[in-house]
Parts: sequence; structure tokens; C-alpha cells
Amino acid sequence: MRIFGIDPGSDRTGYGCVETDGSRHRIIASGAIQTTGAASFPEKLLLIHTGLAALLKECRPDTVAIENLFHAVNARSALKLGHARGVAMLAAVEAGLTVAEYTPAEVKRAVVGYGRAEKHQVQHMVKLILGLDVVPTPHDASDALAVALCHSHSLTPVGAVESRTKRPRAETSWRHYKPTGS
Amino acid sequence: MRIFGIDPGSDRTGYGCVETDGSRHRIIASGAIQTTGAASFPEKLLLIHTGLAALLKECRPDTVAIENLFHAVNARSALKLGHARGVAMLAAVEAGLTVAEYTPAEVKRAVVGYGRAEKHQVQHMVKLILGLDVVPTPHDASDALAVALCHSHSLTPVGAVESRTKRPRAETSWRHYKPTGS
Repeated sequence: MRIFGIDPGSDRTGYGCVETDGSRHRIIASGAIQTTGAASFPEKLLLIHTGLAALLKECRPDTVAIENLFHAVNARSALKLGHARGVAMLAAVEAGLTVAEYTPAEVKRAVVGYGRAEKHQVQHMVKLILGLDVVPTPHDASDALAVALCHSHSLTPVGAVESRTKRPRAETSWRHYKPTGS
Repeated sequence: MRIFGIDPGSDRTGYGCVETDGSRHRIIASGAIQTTGAASFPEKLLLIHTGLAALLKECRPDTVAIENLFHAVNARSALKLGHARGVAMLAAVEAGLTVAEYTPAEVKRAVVGYGRAEKHQVQHMVKLILGLDVVPTPHDASDALAVALCHSHSLTPVGAVESRTKRPRAETSWRHYKPTGS
């Protein structure tokens, strides 16, 4: 199962594709689409859309996971972010893929085991889980990988889900996973 | 000059295309893309995008004008609206068109002559300016036509612009225009 994670932003949209069999995870691609050079805001959206469309074609994921941020931002920045998220979702649905959404707290809980984890803790766990030597840069890329890993977490086999329901929420975390290749 | 106005919304996106020679205005098309039947939010965005792309192809406008709303909405609804606006802008830029943005107050000032005009006053003026028998429905359609007319107002010949700068803002309105065909 390949999951394509997206951390949208109008100036930089992070992406990260991971392959998972439910317990082992492998990085396929990660990076960020930089739009700061675009002439106008609509052109930024065009860059994000065409960039993601090309990446989805190349990575051939089975599904897309995207960060859902609506807390702690004001209406103006939420509106701006919405544009980037909108064209990102469009690229996914145009590629015939379903889109799963996770709040930052859900991502943190899944990857670090604690919904209020610090950014560097998430990055550290992404590195560990994917058996990487360094934290993927820019940070939008590791955030996107974290979203993808969060979604892979929600796809654990039925038995695992059953056992999860018996445990408190914070324990259903990546802390128990042995990182691949390290 | 043909102007395609858009009043974006995730449930309903209004559109209205007008042709103008600077003083006379003719309606080319208006209506709304209804997305309430879509299975998911990403599919709503797909409907908006494909709908607008088809309409832009059909109407062949020279430019696009879109309502810019970031006041008086909370972060959550701004984020949602941003998605619809994002895919609408994308459709425009994919069609090679420039996108002009106007706040509701700018639209009201241009069409009614008063930035705090009521919605029905805007609709009435749209009907009058375009020489229509009735107000275009749904209201998103007349709002989109108002945005298009607002943009046409900003395209008045140099002489007119010069005279505008000598007068107070509220007077640079559609009140002085004689509606076509009525």
C-alpha cells in the first residue's frame, strides 16, 4: 500500500510518499513544491496543482492523506491555506484517489504518541520509522511523511484495530514500531 | 471585452459572464454550479473545477473577476471557502486568464455606489445595468454578475478614470449608467 502525504501551503507544499505493509514502512519520495517564484497567487496554485499531479503520476500511490489545519489560524491565513489545500485535493481526486484528512494533533498522536508533541519530535520519529539517516528536509516534507504515516496507522489489520480499541488512545502510537532498516 | 465573474462557494459557485464596451453591458451567461449532490468534499472541488473549466471554454472571456471574502467569517468557514476559490482560480489560470479580485464592499461600491449596500440593492442594480426583466437566480449568479460588472468598472477608459479621481469614491458608481435595453 502506497500512501501519498501532503502538507499544503501556498508558498511551499510538502509531499511524502511511503510504502507500507502494515508494519514496515519505506520512503518512496519526499520533497516540497516551492512557489515563491510565481508571478501571482493563481500561478502559485497552478504550480502546486501541476506539481502534485505529476508527482501522483510518478509515485502511483493507492491513496492520499492531507493535513487538515483549521485551528490556531486566523480567517485570512485559513482562506489562503484553503486555496492550496483545494488544488491539492483536486489533484488527488483527478487522479482517482481517495483523500483522508488528519488534524496536526491526530498526526502527532499517531507518529509520536502524544497529540501535543513538538515539531522536532515528529521529525525525529519520521526519521526513525522510515529508517532514514537524517530528517527529510524541508520540514514540510517530513510533515507530509508524518501525515502519510498517520494514515498508514489507521490502516492496521483488523486484529490490531481491535486490540487498539481496548487500549487508551495515546498508546496507539508509533512508539511501538521498530524502524525499518536501522 | 468579456468578463467572467465568479462567486465561489463549496456548495454553490455562482458565475456570470458579461460583455462590455465600457458603457454598455450585455449578459452572456449566468448560473451556478451546484455541488450538494457530490459524494465527498474533494468531489465537490472536482465539480467546481470541471464546471468552471467548461464554462470558460464556452464563454471565452478575456478576463476573470472573483469575489474576495475574508472578513466576517471564522477560520473554519474561510478555510472551506478557500478550497472552492482555489480551484476556481486554478480553472482561470489554466485557461490562460488573469484573475482580478474584489471584496464585497468594492463590488457594492462599484455596482450600487455604497460599500454597505444590501444584497437586494446589488441584485436590483445588476438587473438594471444588464437590462434584464428579472434578477438572475440563484443569488450566487447575480453576485457573480456583480463581480464581473465591478471589474468592468475598473476598466473604464483613461479619461473616465481621470475624472473619477477628482470625485469622491462613492460617486464612481453604476448609479450613473443607463441600463442597456430598458
